Amino acid sequence: MSALNRRWRVAGMPSEHLETSHFALETVDRPEASDGQVLCRVLWISMDAAQRAWFQAATYRAAIQVGDTMPGFTLAQVVESHCDDFAVGDIVAGDLAWQDYVVADPNNLRRIVPNRPLSNYLSVLGITGLTAYFGLLDVGEAKSGETVVVSAAAGATGSLVGQIAKLHGCRVVGICSSPEKQKWLTSELGFDAAVSHRDEAFRQKLKEACPEGIDVYFDNVGGTTLDTALSVMAHRGRVVCCGVVSQYDTSTPVRGARGVPGVLILKSITMRGFLVMTDYADRWDEGLRALEGWLEDGSLRVAEDVLEGLEKAPEGLIGVLNGVNVGKRMIHVADPL
Amino acid sequence: MSALNRRWRVAGMPSEHLETSHFALETVDRPEASDGQVLCRVLWISMDAAQRAWFQAATYRAAIQVGDTMPGFTLAQVVESHCDDFAVGDIVAGDLAWQDYVVADPNNLRRIVPNRPLSNYLSVLGITGLTAYFGLLDVGEAKSGETVVVSAAAGATGSLVGQIAKLHGCRVVGICSSPEKQKWLTSELGFDAAVSHRDEAFRQKLKEACPEGIDVYFDNVGGTTLDTALSVMAHRGRVVCCGVVSQYDTSTPVRGARGVPGVLILKSITMRGFLVMTDYADRWDEGLRALEGWLEDGSLRVAEDVLEGLEKAPEGLIGVLNGVNVGKRMIHVADPL
Repeated sequence: MSALNRRWRVAGMPSEHLETSHFALETVDRPEASDGQVLCRVLWISMDAAQRAWFQAATYRAAIQVGDTMPGFTLAQVVESHCDDFAVGDIVAGDLAWQDYVVADPNNLRRIVPNRPLSNYLSVLGITGLTAYFGLLDVGEAKSGETVVVSAAAGATGSLVGQIAKLHGCRVVGICSSPEKQKWLTSELGFDAAVSHRDEAFRQKLKEACPEGIDVYFDNVGGTTLDTALSVMAHRGRVVCCGVVSQYDTSTPVRGARGVPGVLILKSITMRGFLVMTDYADRWDEGLRALEGWLEDGSLRVAEDVLEGLEKAPEGLIGVLNGVNVGKRMIHVADPL
Repeated sequence: MSALNRRWRVAGMPSEHLETSHFALETVDRPEASDGQVLCRVLWISMDAAQRAWFQAATYRAAIQVGDTMPGFTLAQVVESHCDDFAVGDIVAGDLAWQDYVVADPNNLRRIVPNRPLSNYLSVLGITGLTAYFGLLDVGEAKSGETVVVSAAAGATGSLVGQIAKLHGCRVVGICSSPEKQKWLTSELGFDAAVSHRDEAFRQKLKEACPEGIDVYFDNVGGTTLDTALSVMAHRGRVVCCGVVSQYDTSTPVRGARGVPGVLILKSITMRGFLVMTDYADRWDEGLRALEGWLEDGSLRVAEDVLEGLEKAPEGLIGVLNGVNVGKRMIHVADPL
């Protein structure tokens, strides 16, 4: 075990787009665990567009400050334990930030007993998969025969939402940002149709792909894509408000979703926001059982986009904000002992 | 029975505020009912802010055109019947427009058997009361102990929403437009607090009136009042989208509710629009029974704002758009025979 710890500090606050210059890699002494604590070695780091929102203001967590080690969801291994809850070798999940080693309070860790590739526990069997599962089925109440549209469809959450909707007998249309992703969604993931929000005829193509309107719109992006989807909703449609990626990496967010609340009244539409970590904390096991079942019988395909090495974290996150990833982007830092 | 019919025609389309010059009163021959039809005498006309929206675009009804007799909800009496469903003397409700006499298809009429003042069937025992009842309890899922805020609180729907919420054990805060209305809401209707959206310290006063945040915001107005309420919502709060009065009488509506969808995600908020006429058509009897019960035991106070004579209809509606009414505004046209 190295006596040193590499960590990514926040070196500046983005005023417009996030850039690599907003981060600085530094090497310091490995921290020491005290009584009741554990020392963890970070193995995998999750790259989530929502991390950009953490710079803007307090969200479900305090706002990021200059000097912070960049926070982020991780998988890690316990390498030193001074508590009864965890033993050396245990695999844990938690917000352990962009670094090699971290001293953690056991209350902030969740034990993972992996029987699949470890990375899966940060994608389909982590917050991403649970967000897709509960967002689509519980918040959105998607039912067989309905039309489900998901934005950022080739992303981590979207690619799972569409597949789970297909497993529930829905017609599934993905919104993404390129012809390559459109092709991937329909030919590889089994989506019924895919449209690009960069297409000049975006609204027309979305309407054509949803001849009876949208019953459930799973929204990861907000902005003008949400405006367009709202205009194609069916009566009594549901909008699952999961993310606002289009508005994170900018200093000039749009004022609000166009036509809200008028369009909600005219079509009896429900918009509902949620955070799976808090709203579904007591139902995670249910979601994980369902997701594991689909993985085991081969009906759910996991798309992971892995970058190698802690040094790749800043560019990895910036890539997510620019939509270059296909599936769940993660940084592989180290292998378990 | 007069051989003549007075009717208010739409003489022009408002580009900004609705004015009396957009209407023209004309006198024509009384229409003749054919086989299967009934001739009705209009008794009461409902004045609803939503009527202004009918000028803007197709809503739950076709958009108003120049030359139309101004549509509107009415109570009427059958004065000639050529069908089996209705007899002379029957009291009916329906959209019979701003006029003395109208020939109607029986399928568009609903029979009223009044055992209370007739006007009540256009206010608390009509669409207004049902909107308050189902909007608060079913769409908003208001529960005892929760904080309910309603805008246009001194208006037709708002004054009922607040009273029904009190009957359900909620803390009730009204948003209105003047100190006189604030006083009326708290001293006459039993609201716990009332704030004016015209107060410079509106947001601060709303926060003080809702120390634990807003659990249910019953929104009749949209616009900046909705923006403010959204910023004071409690976790898992519900916004009942009932009306957008602030945006009807203008050619420059705001783009959309500020911060939507981001604020919905951060606080797990639900926004839901509804139209009681369609969404609750099969549950009207349930709502009417509850409302009649509260009227009979004196626990619900009816606030009606009556103008005398068909000729008052245009100024009556313009007054509603300017918020001059207290309670449900109606035009009294004639008494039943």
